[in-house]
Amino acid sequence: MTFALVHSDTHSKARAGLLETAHGAIETPIFMPVGTVGSVKAVHQHELDQLIGAQIILGNTYHLYLRPGLEVLEKAGGLHRFIGWDKPILTDSGGYQVYSLSHRRKITEEGVAFQSHIDGSTHFFTPEKAIDIQRTIGGDVIMAFDECPPYPSDYAYAKTSMELTHRWLERCCAHFDRQGGMYGYEQTLFPIVQGSTYTDLRKQSAEFIAQMDRPGNAIGGLSVGEPAPEMYATTGLVCDILPWEKPRYLMGVGTPANILECIALGVDMFDCVLPTRNARHGLLYTAEGVMNMKNAKWKEDLSPIDAQSPVPTSRHHTKAYLRHLFHSKELLAMQLATLHNLGFFLWLVRESRKQILEGNFAAWKAQLAPKLDRRI
Amino acid sequence: MTFALVHSDTHSKARAGLLETAHGAIETPIFMPVGTVGSVKAVHQHELDQLIGAQIILGNTYHLYLRPGLEVLEKAGGLHRFIGWDKPILTDSGGYQVYSLSHRRKITEEGVAFQSHIDGSTHFFTPEKAIDIQRTIGGDVIMAFDECPPYPSDYAYAKTSMELTHRWLERCCAHFDRQGGMYGYEQTLFPIVQGSTYTDLRKQSAEFIAQMDRPGNAIGGLSVGEPAPEMYATTGLVCDILPWEKPRYLMGVGTPANILECIALGVDMFDCVLPTRNARHGLLYTAEGVMNMKNAKWKEDLSPIDAQSPVPTSRHHTKAYLRHLFHSKELLAMQLATLHNLGFFLWLVRESRKQILEGNFAAWKAQLAPKLDRRI
Repeated sequence: MTFALVHSDTHSKARAGLLETAHGAIETPIFMPVGTVGSVKAVHQHELDQLIGAQIILGNTYHLYLRPGLEVLEKAGGLHRFIGWDKPILTDSGGYQVYSLSHRRKITEEGVAFQSHIDGSTHFFTPEKAIDIQRTIGGDVIMAFDECPPYPSDYAYAKTSMELTHRWLERCCAHFDRQGGMYGYEQTLFPIVQGSTYTDLRKQSAEFIAQMDRPGNAIGGLSVGEPAPEMYATTGLVCDILPWEKPRYLMGVGTPANILECIALGVDMFDCVLPTRNARHGLLYTAEGVMNMKNAKWKEDLSPIDAQSPVPTSRHHTKAYLRHLFHSKELLAMQLATLHNLGFFLWLVRESRKQILEGNFAAWKAQLAPKLDRRI
Repeated sequence: MTFALVHSDTHSKARAGLLETAHGAIETPIFMPVGTVGSVKAVHQHELDQLIGAQIILGNTYHLYLRPGLEVLEKAGGLHRFIGWDKPILTDSGGYQVYSLSHRRKITEEGVAFQSHIDGSTHFFTPEKAIDIQRTIGGDVIMAFDECPPYPSDYAYAKTSMELTHRWLERCCAHFDRQGGMYGYEQTLFPIVQGSTYTDLRKQSAEFIAQMDRPGNAIGGLSVGEPAPEMYATTGLVCDILPWEKPRYLMGVGTPANILECIALGVDMFDCVLPTRNARHGLLYTAEGVMNMKNAKWKEDLSPIDAQSPVPTSRHHTKAYLRHLFHSKELLAMQLATLHNLGFFLWLVRESRKQILEGNFAAWKAQLAPKLDRRI
């Protein structure tokens, strides 16, 4: 994997880059739609590619490990081939999902024992196993096995957790470097900065991660309930420590406004379930704000869902029609809304890149950002 | 509306025709996907057009009347514009749905009083109102308001019901002929033959409907539980009486084998919820038989869903992937399966037409039909 910085903004720390992987190039900043179990919910793969402009999607190790399972994935030749997606894929390590199983998991120095949410069966993930599983899934970018502390965490817990994450990272790297990928193409391991919202811990973690000298780095443990100013302060602090010339991935973030702000702080890669999950509940993101498509106000509104959308169905169908589909519980409602939201998030990062290249990012962001959180 | 018979089979009563409507031409025999409330479930309109080859879709008057309601539909300029589908649409009259509300409806000479399945509100449909509603929905082909008797019905009930349907038909025609469409294009009214499975009633009804001399005719009251031989006998009897030069629409039929058999009897138009409803439950139709995609046997089957399918996603994705999506309750499972089944039904009528034109329909059908009902 190679990463080249194409242009850096002079009014912010925003960057336009080009990430090259075995499955093709990714223009950064980028947003990665989440395809939990091998499908970005309600969207065909060819739509991701041709309608949305997705350049990379995310898979969840915890979910894929449980279903369809490693045997099928290996037999298929990896996740790309299993799901019919030949562009890049990033997998998380399973750490975050396992941490979310609060009452069904036990963390030790060796790893995490947990029970499947599907059938209650018992499993044990170690840093080494998380790497092995991700080797079998075959993502182009794979993630170190970390512990993601809840928000808020007290200082002692955050510090202990961070130190465990660092020791696990050393085991991940050692294991990762022992052998190459299973399918003949290169995979790249990203370590993850933790440390909750404590400045000294985040600084210490970022320095530790930076000296591991991997081809790219991630920032975890944010967007877990902390106020936005804390998210931005922490992201800014960490970005300033992580190597300038390597891609930075902010995990699980966030709203369109969060994404713009963090691009300005120097983040290159994002993923989040917001656009897909909220779409299924009728919340649509636009450059003018957020619309709840179930509202009665749209009942007879025959204007396009979003005349400015890059997605044809959002330009051609009306708000009244989409509202009707939601009220009638038609699957097409979720399909149209998901396409719309992903189209908007991908437009947002694509347009950010264009504005960075044109030297206009800060001014453009200042004009757009205040509108993004409005309810319209 | 015009209908031209392009070619008639010499070994059966199958015909290849061309139906011209205000929204374009339809090559017959044709299958019409069902878009109950203004959406063919789980399928985008552009997919119906470009991937499936749908030439006409069906809307349900009962459902559309209740939701989104006539006010919105009229404001939008009719159903075509409301849903963004500029090819032909056929609407049923609401009779069948109202009849299905067994405990919530009361039939009188004047019409049918019923309670909405959504909110229990009371409504009253008459033949005249069914026409008015269909004028507002704006289908290219609209249906007479009939009573569809259950199967089995005793002779006395079937006769009384048929006579009521005939009187209602006269009221429908008189009302329909009083004024044109609301949106400046022509609509066409099809009457419906009833008479349950009684030969003399079906004969009497077919003769009554034929002498009404409308541009096309429909056969109702079949595929309601009667054995297939009775369906075929009744369809054959009625087709032989209905005018040769006009299109014949067999309502609510059926399986792929039913469709082939009834094409051979002289039917030109079909609709059915089977391909869409069964798709959502994991049943896929192919030229080799029916597959239950939830079966364990597909767990590691990395062969295409259907290598012969006209639908790209069915050729490119594997059985193992589709099974995984069904087991993971992913919406994409229903999307892929629905595209597949509709693609197969549209292929079946398209290929039937081709074989009729080439004079090979009977031989082709004899080879294909025995495989269609197999479980594979």
